[in-house]
Amino acid sequence: MRIDILTLFPEMFEIFNHSILGRAVEKNILNIKAHNIRDYSLNRHKKVDDYPYGGGAGMVMTPQPIVDSIRAMKRENNGKVIFLGPRGKTFNQDMAKELSKEKEMIFLCGHYEGIDERIYNYIDMEISLGDFVLTGGEMACIPIVDSICRLVPGVLSCSESFMEESFYEGVLEYPQYTRPECFEEQKVPGVLLSGHHENIRKWRRKQSLLITRERRRDLFEKLNLSVEDKKILKDKKI
Amino acid sequence: MRIDILTLFPEMFEIFNHSILGRAVEKNILNIKAHNIRDYSLNRHKKVDDYPYGGGAGMVMTPQPIVDSIRAMKRENNGKVIFLGPRGKTFNQDMAKELSKEKEMIFLCGHYEGIDERIYNYIDMEISLGDFVLTGGEMACIPIVDSICRLVPGVLSCSESFMEESFYEGVLEYPQYTRPECFEEQKVPGVLLSGHHENIRKWRRKQSLLITRERRRDLFEKLNLSVEDKKILKDKKI
Repeated sequence: MRIDILTLFPEMFEIFNHSILGRAVEKNILNIKAHNIRDYSLNRHKKVDDYPYGGGAGMVMTPQPIVDSIRAMKRENNGKVIFLGPRGKTFNQDMAKELSKEKEMIFLCGHYEGIDERIYNYIDMEISLGDFVLTGGEMACIPIVDSICRLVPGVLSCSESFMEESFYEGVLEYPQYTRPECFEEQKVPGVLLSGHHENIRKWRRKQSLLITRERRRDLFEKLNLSVEDKKILKDKKI
Repeated sequence: MRIDILTLFPEMFEIFNHSILGRAVEKNILNIKAHNIRDYSLNRHKKVDDYPYGGGAGMVMTPQPIVDSIRAMKRENNGKVIFLGPRGKTFNQDMAKELSKEKEMIFLCGHYEGIDERIYNYIDMEISLGDFVLTGGEMACIPIVDSICRLVPGVLSCSESFMEESFYEGVLEYPQYTRPECFEEQKVPGVLLSGHHENIRKWRRKQSLLITRERRRDLFEKLNLSVEDKKILKDKKI
């Protein structure tokens, strides 16, 4: 997968040289490059922002540097142009799955108080990370690229990708325990030490359902509970 | 504000040396330090994870290194211990505002398939970035710390903090325009060039409401529209 990121702070994306994504970049499974929008400014002081028409104290990113940087990217990258902004659709696992099928993508990070509205005519899609304000689009781009890229075949090792993560099925994860069996007087639940696979499976399912019901009523209400799920929830022995 | 971050990848947090947060770190308004959990492992190979009890192919972070690292932090930092995890409350602007009042905080980033459930007994709060899967808690920690820190007095300059950001009032931002007046045959809306402040204010409010209604019905339905808002929405001249 090839990803080009347009930003005023390309050095922030050195983060993708670490950990799981860093390993995939090294193996050439991922090709992630950050480009400085400022390099495309035709202004002699390399200015990229200006005062808003109609007043207000913030600064707005001007169209020329961004539009020219998008055009330059498009000569090498045929992917969608995705802007990280607060008016976009909220990112979720379904979007991550969809976008992980793309071969190429261009991400645009805004900064200052916003971008000139006319720039939207050169953008294919706007994504929001959530209902909160960030110092810049970079802070949204990083987790979104991470979430998409980890689904690209070969990025995760077998053991990392094993677990059927919660959000795929719409439930939260069951509790996990590892060594030691007793830590500061807290013991691992007996069922996990029993070796009885069927009981373990049922216990884990019950825990997932209980935790989801307690903490995320919104997710729980969307679940299509199976006959077995309903039985497990009622069974006090599990 | 003092923030200590417990992670297996402290080098990822070099990102806070850049841009707006980097400036605040330099001015000592923010004191953000990342610490390697692995340094606290008593295992002679500095192991931090192990196989899950009850089976499954993933790896789970063991309690000892994390709990010891939390205890070490607590000797210097009296703040809440906040774990970035998928079972937490979804982060939003209200949480950012609340947490920006704290003087000290300790963030814990998980990795691998999860953390041993008993670690939750040493944690005060769990926050989720959203309904998607990441390669590690670091990817959630970065935007969350950014969103909290930008609200700390002195972090943003006057012009940066000027704008009453959308999520404070529950509406999306109105369109912004800057120089030039005409860009590739696209003109700035006339009202913004009129100099008529009252008309500009009404136009911007109308645009915010329309964009919110169109793109985020969920936010729009929560709004308490004023008499003026209702009038503005109906007025075809605005």
